[in-house]
Amino acid sequence: MHQIVLFWGVAIAPLVQSKGQNLRQGLIIVTAKPAITQYPIHELLAQRWSPLAFSERPVEGEKIQRLLEAARWAASCFNEQPWRFIVATRDHAEDYARLLSCLVEANQTWAGRAPLLMLTVASMHFQRNGNPNRHAYHDVGLAVGNLTAQAMAMGLFVHQMAGIEPEQAREVYKIPEGYEVVTAIAIGYLGQSAELSASLQQREAAPRQRREFSEFVFAGEWGQASPLI
Amino acid sequence: MHQIVLFWGVAIAPLVQSKGQNLRQGLIIVTAKPAITQYPIHELLAQRWSPLAFSERPVEGEKIQRLLEAARWAASCFNEQPWRFIVATRDHAEDYARLLSCLVEANQTWAGRAPLLMLTVASMHFQRNGNPNRHAYHDVGLAVGNLTAQAMAMGLFVHQMAGIEPEQAREVYKIPEGYEVVTAIAIGYLGQSAELSASLQQREAAPRQRREFSEFVFAGEWGQASPLI
Repeated sequence: MHQIVLFWGVAIAPLVQSKGQNLRQGLIIVTAKPAITQYPIHELLAQRWSPLAFSERPVEGEKIQRLLEAARWAASCFNEQPWRFIVATRDHAEDYARLLSCLVEANQTWAGRAPLLMLTVASMHFQRNGNPNRHAYHDVGLAVGNLTAQAMAMGLFVHQMAGIEPEQAREVYKIPEGYEVVTAIAIGYLGQSAELSASLQQREAAPRQRREFSEFVFAGEWGQASPLI
Repeated sequence: MHQIVLFWGVAIAPLVQSKGQNLRQGLIIVTAKPAITQYPIHELLAQRWSPLAFSERPVEGEKIQRLLEAARWAASCFNEQPWRFIVATRDHAEDYARLLSCLVEANQTWAGRAPLLMLTVASMHFQRNGNPNRHAYHDVGLAVGNLTAQAMAMGLFVHQMAGIEPEQAREVYKIPEGYEVVTAIAIGYLGQSAELSASLQQREAAPRQRREFSEFVFAGEWGQASPLI
């Protein structure tokens, strides 16, 4: 099978390069979906997207270590580091199945091909004094942001999921009170979207969209678009 | 005044390069505090830290645009993009003072020198159906993670603060119900820590610390350290 790969040698692609069409096979292989930015951003951020089709190629152990090291060095409120990760690879079928069972069914269909799965968990109280940590979820987000940038730097892609079964996860892993399962994450190399169902292929090929700056960057007063952008 | 600059030409520094000592002046200038990593990570992540001393050099408008563009392209649950930013630069004294007034006093002392301040705000419900968005804070974290990586790529440093006065911010900016102020962010070029108070200089020079992997990476069961790392 021929695979068309679109290289992303430049930080910002002026046009969507979202589809490589393999005319011989009549297959659509999504190989890159760079952000259509108004202002240039670093390629690790511009080239990030959340694929549904993962290759079965395992993620090298050394890369898994670097992903978690990147997460480790995120900033956090009072340096609490409220993030926890439960990790499973396809090499360990039982562990993998257990983690996969914590995803909603719709996500299991595609995420079950990813070689590396994680659950992210937030510690909801400060270790030092037991007070609630209002920024626990936020700081898990910072850690996963780091992990994602590190993944991109190593040719790996990350797809985060809110669609999990938190109570199932709590039961399966005996997650104690004071911790909340936040997301699941599928990680791996890009696969062939042709192997997805028709509806998932459509989702995979859909253009990326974002809010206008005037909707989310304010100055002076709430809702007043900043003149800076 | 002489300034000793430690360049970070390599992705991972094997030792802490946290202090450049200006012997002539007897001043300590912190110019780099790379993460002491066990596994190598991308330099944008390894070189990130949260300085207290900012230069008065303004942040170029074009860089502010790129910071916010980076935030814009983060992933989010159902692509809700729940992040909002209120932005102020020192060029606009009144706006700047208004934003600074939303920080706790201890943060005002040092953050009030940064040329660029932001408040991050989370939209707590999905726009499509009004349901609560459990991942609003988390996704603000992802956006700020992107912004921070972009800052590092442009020679800018970011210091996030949980120490804000949310009710003051709500009043000052007339932030409506359904939105919550999450953090404040100071952004700028590195300054000279010698200009900080003695106690802040000490904080600036303190070594960086992180949890051991066994404390936050689990497999199979909660609290069971993953053999992957």
